[in-house]
Amino acid sequence: MSTKPTLHTSVSPALLHLYDLSNSVVVIIDVFRATSTIAAALYNGAKAVIPVDSVPKAIEISKNIGGIAAGERDGQIAEGLQHGNSPLEYHREFIEGKTLVLTTTNGTRLLQMALDKNADTIISGSFPNLSVVCDFLLKEKKNVILGCAGWKDRFNLEDTLFAGAVIHRLKNEFTIHCDSSLMAETMYAKQKNNLIEFAPQLTHYHRLVERFGLIEDIKFCLTNDVANVLPVYNDGKLVTS
Amino acid sequence: MSTKPTLHTSVSPALLHLYDLSNSVVVIIDVFRATSTIAAALYNGAKAVIPVDSVPKAIEISKNIGGIAAGERDGQIAEGLQHGNSPLEYHREFIEGKTLVLTTTNGTRLLQMALDKNADTIISGSFPNLSVVCDFLLKEKKNVILGCAGWKDRFNLEDTLFAGAVIHRLKNEFTIHCDSSLMAETMYAKQKNNLIEFAPQLTHYHRLVERFGLIEDIKFCLTNDVANVLPVYNDGKLVTS
Repeated sequence: MSTKPTLHTSVSPALLHLYDLSNSVVVIIDVFRATSTIAAALYNGAKAVIPVDSVPKAIEISKNIGGIAAGERDGQIAEGLQHGNSPLEYHREFIEGKTLVLTTTNGTRLLQMALDKNADTIISGSFPNLSVVCDFLLKEKKNVILGCAGWKDRFNLEDTLFAGAVIHRLKNEFTIHCDSSLMAETMYAKQKNNLIEFAPQLTHYHRLVERFGLIEDIKFCLTNDVANVLPVYNDGKLVTS
Repeated sequence: MSTKPTLHTSVSPALLHLYDLSNSVVVIIDVFRATSTIAAALYNGAKAVIPVDSVPKAIEISKNIGGIAAGERDGQIAEGLQHGNSPLEYHREFIEGKTLVLTTTNGTRLLQMALDKNADTIISGSFPNLSVVCDFLLKEKKNVILGCAGWKDRFNLEDTLFAGAVIHRLKNEFTIHCDSSLMAETMYAKQKNNLIEFAPQLTHYHRLVERFGLIEDIKFCLTNDVANVLPVYNDGKLVTS
């Protein structure tokens, strides 16, 4: 009898309720760009990232604590804010020692859902911190839910590809009876050496690159281990473990 | 400027509401086994298939019209019924000239959702009628939603593979900006010559084959054009167009 923990992939926030989070590590995945940005900010010395669900809340909290209010709506810096959701904004000279108060279209909401569903542990994952996420999941030996943020509840491929990358590394250590995970790992195995070349086929690529010229963001978000820290959610904040 | 109609894939009933069905042909896809069974029954001369959402309704309607009540719950013949959801049950000697009143776990519910969302046209699709589905979509030149029934709202690969088969044939005739469709077509292109060999990796395969021994059902459901008729929904019934 297998005693390996289970692993499932939820391909949209609208499907997260189908999974039992209560004894699980939930990995929040929003590759373009929230979870890549969170990794980048913490890697470059941010004290914490506080995810919030609205622009007014981001402004209020950042004022109270002397943090940086930031966020996007529909791929652009949100109205009323000076800082957006680009990982490249949060270089060390700017973010070290500060707290980032971040609101995003998809990732923030998914994190709130995981909280509401009493997830045991919540971490955030993206290609820039792939290795440390995998190491943590291996070490914890708990059930895992890979939670893709998608785009306004639609399936997106970049989050699924990251889920696939995790599964590709860990599949022998977990019990996986989950078609989403099989699909994610198959898609990743096919594209793993060409992620940046594959990106122009993604819906979100068009949104970010053709409309906003964010090709350097895309490259960062698809590169393994360039911000290899583990953001763990604790008491309202993501901090490095 | 492209004047091609659009095509989207909804990978779960829980995501169907994200798409505009009102000017679209919706293809209901429940490969294991509802839409394969519907194709088989109509191919073998059934007058109509009436999809209903409960066993009591199936029994009541079939009594009133002198039809065959049938259906499954969790992969088995539903309690109180004598006939299930196996396409192989509905051979010509049994079903010709009769009306099948069918209730299933996933496909029936998805069809009702498409109705509630005012789909322009609803048809059902599966590998046994792949070609006629593609021919119809080409001829209609309307927007298309490929609606996967999944398993209790979870993503499943067999429905997505059928969506991919349709996209593989039609992708040059539609405007497709949809990561689900890109994923579905990629998965299908990779497995298209080995669908039956690939099947043991599917969650639903274990449910049907290991628990109920339905390997011949699986083979039928994954074979192209063995029941190549087009079930069109009209006034409460699926009939051949």
